[in-house]
Amino acid sequence: MASLYGHAFRISTFGESHGGAVGVVVDGCPPRIALTEADIQVDLDRRRPGQSEIVTPRDEADACKIVSGTFEGQTIGTPIAVIVYNKDARPDSYREMESAFRPSHADYTYDAKFGIRNWQGGGRASARETIGRVAAAVIAKKVLQQLAPELEIIAYVKSIHSLTATVDPATVRFDDVEANIVRCPDAPMAVKMIDFIKEVRSEGDSVGGVIECVVRGVPPGWGEPVFDKLEAELAKAMLSLPATKGFEIGSGFGGTLMRGSEHNDAFEMRDGKVRTRTNLSGGIQGGISNGEPIFFRVAFKPTATIFREQDTVTTTGENTKLKARGRHDACVLPRAVPMVEAMVALVLCDHALRHRGQCGDF
Amino acid sequence: MASLYGHAFRISTFGESHGGAVGVVVDGCPPRIALTEADIQVDLDRRRPGQSEIVTPRDEADACKIVSGTFEGQTIGTPIAVIVYNKDARPDSYREMESAFRPSHADYTYDAKFGIRNWQGGGRASARETIGRVAAAVIAKKVLQQLAPELEIIAYVKSIHSLTATVDPATVRFDDVEANIVRCPDAPMAVKMIDFIKEVRSEGDSVGGVIECVVRGVPPGWGEPVFDKLEAELAKAMLSLPATKGFEIGSGFGGTLMRGSEHNDAFEMRDGKVRTRTNLSGGIQGGISNGEPIFFRVAFKPTATIFREQDTVTTTGENTKLKARGRHDACVLPRAVPMVEAMVALVLCDHALRHRGQCGDF
Amino acid sequence: MASLYGHAFRISTFGESHGGAVGVVVDGCPPRIALTEADIQVDLDRRRPGQSEIVTPRDEADACKIVSGTFEGQTIGTPIAVIVYNKDARPDSYREMESAFRPSHADYTYDAKFGIRNWQGGGRASARETIGRVAAAVIAKKVLQQLAPELEIIAYVKSIHSLTATVDPATVRFDDVEANIVRCPDAPMAVKMIDFIKEVRSEGDSVGGVIECVVRGVPPGWGEPVFDKLEAELAKAMLSLPATKGFEIGSGFGGTLMRGSEHNDAFEMRDGKVRTRTNLSGGIQGGISNGEPIFFRVAFKPTATIFREQDTVTTTGENTKLKARGRHDACVLPRAVPMVEAMVALVLCDHALRHRGQCGDF
Amino acid sequence: MASLYGHAFRISTFGESHGGAVGVVVDGCPPRIALTEADIQVDLDRRRPGQSEIVTPRDEADACKIVSGTFEGQTIGTPIAVIVYNKDARPDSYREMESAFRPSHADYTYDAKFGIRNWQGGGRASARETIGRVAAAVIAKKVLQQLAPELEIIAYVKSIHSLTATVDPATVRFDDVEANIVRCPDAPMAVKMIDFIKEVRSEGDSVGGVIECVVRGVPPGWGEPVFDKLEAELAKAMLSLPATKGFEIGSGFGGTLMRGSEHNDAFEMRDGKVRTRTNLSGGIQGGISNGEPIFFRVAFKPTATIFREQDTVTTTGENTKLKARGRHDACVLPRAVPMVEAMVALVLCDHALRHRGQCGDF
Repeated sequence: MASLYGHAFRISTFGESHGGAVGVVVDGCPPRIALTEADIQVDLDRRRPGQSEIVTPRDEADACKIVSGTFEGQTIGTPIAVIVYNKDARPDSYREMESAFRPSHADYTYDAKFGIRNWQGGGRASARETIGRVAAAVIAKKVLQQLAPELEIIAYVKSIHSLTATVDPATVRFDDVEANIVRCPDAPMAVKMIDFIKEVRSEGDSVGGVIECVVRGVPPGWGEPVFDKLEAELAKAMLSLPATKGFEIGSGFGGTLMRGSEHNDAFEMRDGKVRTRTNLSGGIQGGISNGEPIFFRVAFKPTATIFREQDTVTTTGENTKLKARGRHDACVLPRAVPMVEAMVALVLCDHALRHRGQCGDF
Repeated sequence: MASLYGHAFRISTFGESHGGAVGVVVDGCPPRIALTEADIQVDLDRRRPGQSEIVTPRDEADACKIVSGTFEGQTIGTPIAVIVYNKDARPDSYREMESAFRPSHADYTYDAKFGIRNWQGGGRASARETIGRVAAAVIAKKVLQQLAPELEIIAYVKSIHSLTATVDPATVRFDDVEANIVRCPDAPMAVKMIDFIKEVRSEGDSVGGVIECVVRGVPPGWGEPVFDKLEAELAKAMLSLPATKGFEIGSGFGGTLMRGSEHNDAFEMRDGKVRTRTNLSGGIQGGISNGEPIFFRVAFKPTATIFREQDTVTTTGENTKLKARGRHDACVLPRAVPMVEAMVALVLCDHALRHRGQCGDF
Repeated sequence: MASLYGHAFRISTFGESHGGAVGVVVDGCPPRIALTEADIQVDLDRRRPGQSEIVTPRDEADACKIVSGTFEGQTIGTPIAVIVYNKDARPDSYREMESAFRPSHADYTYDAKFGIRNWQGGGRASARETIGRVAAAVIAKKVLQQLAPELEIIAYVKSIHSLTATVDPATVRFDDVEANIVRCPDAPMAVKMIDFIKEVRSEGDSVGGVIECVVRGVPPGWGEPVFDKLEAELAKAMLSLPATKGFEIGSGFGGTLMRGSEHNDAFEMRDGKVRTRTNLSGGIQGGISNGEPIFFRVAFKPTATIFREQDTVTTTGENTKLKARGRHDACVLPRAVPMVEAMVALVLCDHALRHRGQCGDF
Repeated sequence: MASLYGHAFRISTFGESHGGAVGVVVDGCPPRIALTEADIQVDLDRRRPGQSEIVTPRDEADACKIVSGTFEGQTIGTPIAVIVYNKDARPDSYREMESAFRPSHADYTYDAKFGIRNWQGGGRASARETIGRVAAAVIAKKVLQQLAPELEIIAYVKSIHSLTATVDPATVRFDDVEANIVRCPDAPMAVKMIDFIKEVRSEGDSVGGVIECVVRGVPPGWGEPVFDKLEAELAKAMLSLPATKGFEIGSGFGGTLMRGSEHNDAFEMRDGKVRTRTNLSGGIQGGISNGEPIFFRVAFKPTATIFREQDTVTTTGENTKLKARGRHDACVLPRAVPMVEAMVALVLCDHALRHRGQCGDF
């Protein structure tokens, strides 16, 4: 059940980095939503390799095909299958990983679990796996657009290593994020980040950072008590992305340094609505959205695959050294921005439909 | 589906703080596991109110009753229902919350979602809800004991506000955690924490902090690729606990300040096993355990319910002021330690059985 | 996962025949539905033992207690737990079943699966397990009443052995069913059935029959394509009841003797609605309700536990003979009528909420 | 969630009859199972149109492609996606169904549910949808072969209209079933059935019948108490196939005419194993397999699409007449035989893995 996500808007992804294809089946999508391959392609292009000089040069157009679930440009309520064939696979660049485990990658653990592994390009553990998520999320966003027209999801690079951007989550705009190849809306800092990533890459090394995401326009009432709290679902969604190490919402870890009297978000009536004066809660209280912007941060570690010689072991249990070849991101964050947004859309769409099912709103 | 957790070892919890009872139904438990009410009571006592002078004085013995699923002291493979009746309910202390929302509590969002709310003591959003989880986790730990006898789960208070303990996750022992009422294994720091919590409480205020947890003895191979990565499941489990705001595993947010060449955990053969020299991964790679200790940290915000007057609004949309009465923890962390351990046990037991189902190990 | 049912309206049942208690937790129930213990008791009384001279004399009031999920007489959207304690347990009457397997009962298969078994009164395989289903179904019916006020579910005994009633599913009324203790709305035939059951019982034997069920007032559009077709869900629901051996909907097995030109239900406009002239489809086409009455039949085998000596084997693998004592139904059908209705209500309520979630109707 | 099946061995199917492609994603498959496209093709050929003179002449090779989840001829534990592109689509033959509903087909109910419908060839309600099931079932059978090497699943045509075959479920062989195009192992009766189907087809009419299935070599202990009883899962699986109207296991409806003393299957020791003298239970007791052959029957109605003029209504609510064109089976049973086997394999594989997860056998 590793590759299924969601209860009401349910997706099933498939595909290895160098297998035949990657893709997704979406079950439970509302009918009569306008949907074309071009809609999906927009976000696939935002996550595809080769899109800029600071990401992996693997050359994949990632052209998608909808093979079911639509009719004359609309969803029909049946499963929507989207498929992207792998084109620029070069398994030979991974030959040495057939017999040795890359440090901090999933090579060893897949072998430990399954006793077999597609060693070509990371197999299922490759970030290429996220194509299915991004494609499904385009559909999710279209559903959300109908249920909550004001809703917008904006993720951006908050920091690369120690370079930290200044961004106001209340006002940041999508176009500012997309204005540069590192996807940081603080333009001067973006220049520094780009230079830094190039420098690190030229050294055969890699680097991580933090992505921040804000969701504005979520109606009050989405999310569930107890296990499926909205922040819990977001935390799972984020930690399911490759290379993630941490998640914090609202005040996060910093909030542990405050007292309740400082941390509580006082309620007040504003424009006839219940609003909070501050938003240290990050838009969610008791697992349920309160109508304020949801915002959170996700930590991404430096990419595991580097072009330096590292100590490791062989599949037959001998110490050895390994130096990667192939094509890899020195920093995953620019391409991870659309992945973060995608997971948010999948979480929210699922919860919007669950809420409608139980409580009948909309 | 709010109150269901797990795929193979599946729990269904129920109960409000001031309703008749709280409890849990565990479905999918392996048969022939020795289990008594006394086993469960041990951990319920660790989470119960009134256990020390720094937690809420609500007087609940939290005596549990197993009403199904066992026979002559053993599990029989059928659902195990455990029930705890609420005894010391004092709904009148919450009367003012009938008409006004506590800031940063779930009062407003439950109302927004359901259009109705049990205002007595937080209802389902009370930490009292975790009784079912802790009871189920005792059973999970007994299953784990059979599948991985070396496995031990140890959580402890790492910090209260700015008071941070020095603890070595590799060697920390359960008895050191339980040696004091704040559940911090750094004894001198524990004294300071206890004093600090008393001081904050005397001011009618509240305070948060960080719980760290280490799991030693997890076999390689547990967890799943993609959505149900082990770290993703742990993140969800932790963020599903009341008052949590953040989760980080291994290097966490700090790891974003390292380069790949510093961050990668080199593999080496040790005692005939594949081991890592460092453990910045936190025991999980690609969503699957690698045999190293799993460790992570969870941020808890200061308790929302404080004994100070706060600005808020009424259920009919007027600005008002609210000062809580009733019995509340000024700091949830000492009682949250067994809750964190419980969620870890539930995640691991579920994944151990899922792994056995798919891969046939054990 | 044995004891969980439903996706949106989800129930989790528990309890053995002679364990402490039986009951259910309902998750996902819409809020603000009026609900009291008295509501639930009505149907529990219809299924309880000792209700008439032709059912088991076990004396259980089956008094239920709602311990969570309601507040001031209304559901609040959180899990509703209902519990019934076993009172008249007489484990000694089952002592011989500790060491020998009853033919055609679940004694042997539970042992084969779990390696352990509560031999007192059938344990989890007792019809007593259905208490949780019946209680949950009362809640389901109340939800359905809001979503489809015209909807009514009427089950009745169609045949006992070769005694077959004449009943018109289009007009049969609930009161006619409840008018006699065998629950057959054909009054003269009911008298014969009652006499026949008494006769069989006096011979220490048992007997089966067929229950028919009609559901009027289901709106078009409930159910799902492919695996969760409405008839597939009903088939599963019925075959999950103890002692069932067959299910047929609409024309059923008899329909295999017709040609397409005879079997097809012609559509016609009637009162401004799309209606069918005949209803051999039984109200469902392609897995989805078409607005016509749903009707189906369920075969119940003769009760396995009889008061005659039978050949069997011991738990240690020796041939032996066994003659049951204890209290048993010579014919389960009168008490199975509310169980059939209950499962229909659970299936329909789940699908109504799923439909609302995906398609937004209501 | 309409198109998902299974808990441990979980499949997600997709595809319309005249959309781009049909297929399946299998999640949770054990690793290191040998699997090639040729393996899958064998069963796809058994269900494909155009295979003989008594089935639909639509010309589809149904050539499958595995696009993920295998490596060097073995499963690797990740999702296996199998895809079959539709080649011989002739949407124009269905043009009149755009505006009128075929009687007893799913045209109207899909419209009622989703407000939109792919009218080309039945869309998702076409038997073409079962390609994904049959493909997944080949994988399931390979898993079962490892877990229970003796297990064999044999389905066959038991009756066409009133023509009933004489077959001994204890000894029937796969080759006898495949020996003729109607898939009835009673050779003389098969000839009559073939002639009868041709005759009915020449009249523009259609016909149904009964498929019987026997499963030999199922180990005791598979299946679950309560909702997921093995017979309940089989009933759902069968009623999820297009055109099915009934299911009976073991003695079935006929068993309602017996007394308990006649119907009970006495246990006896045979070859050191617990066996039953008769098998009216059909190999399952209390929802769990007892080691005896499982056998059941499924009723298939006459095909809804016939080449005769029928009364129906238009999508805009007017009475009209409709006479189908296009290519259709006059009798679905020959091609439904591999579909029945497929669903049995999916049910058993799922339960085998669930059993291994909970109880640790194998």
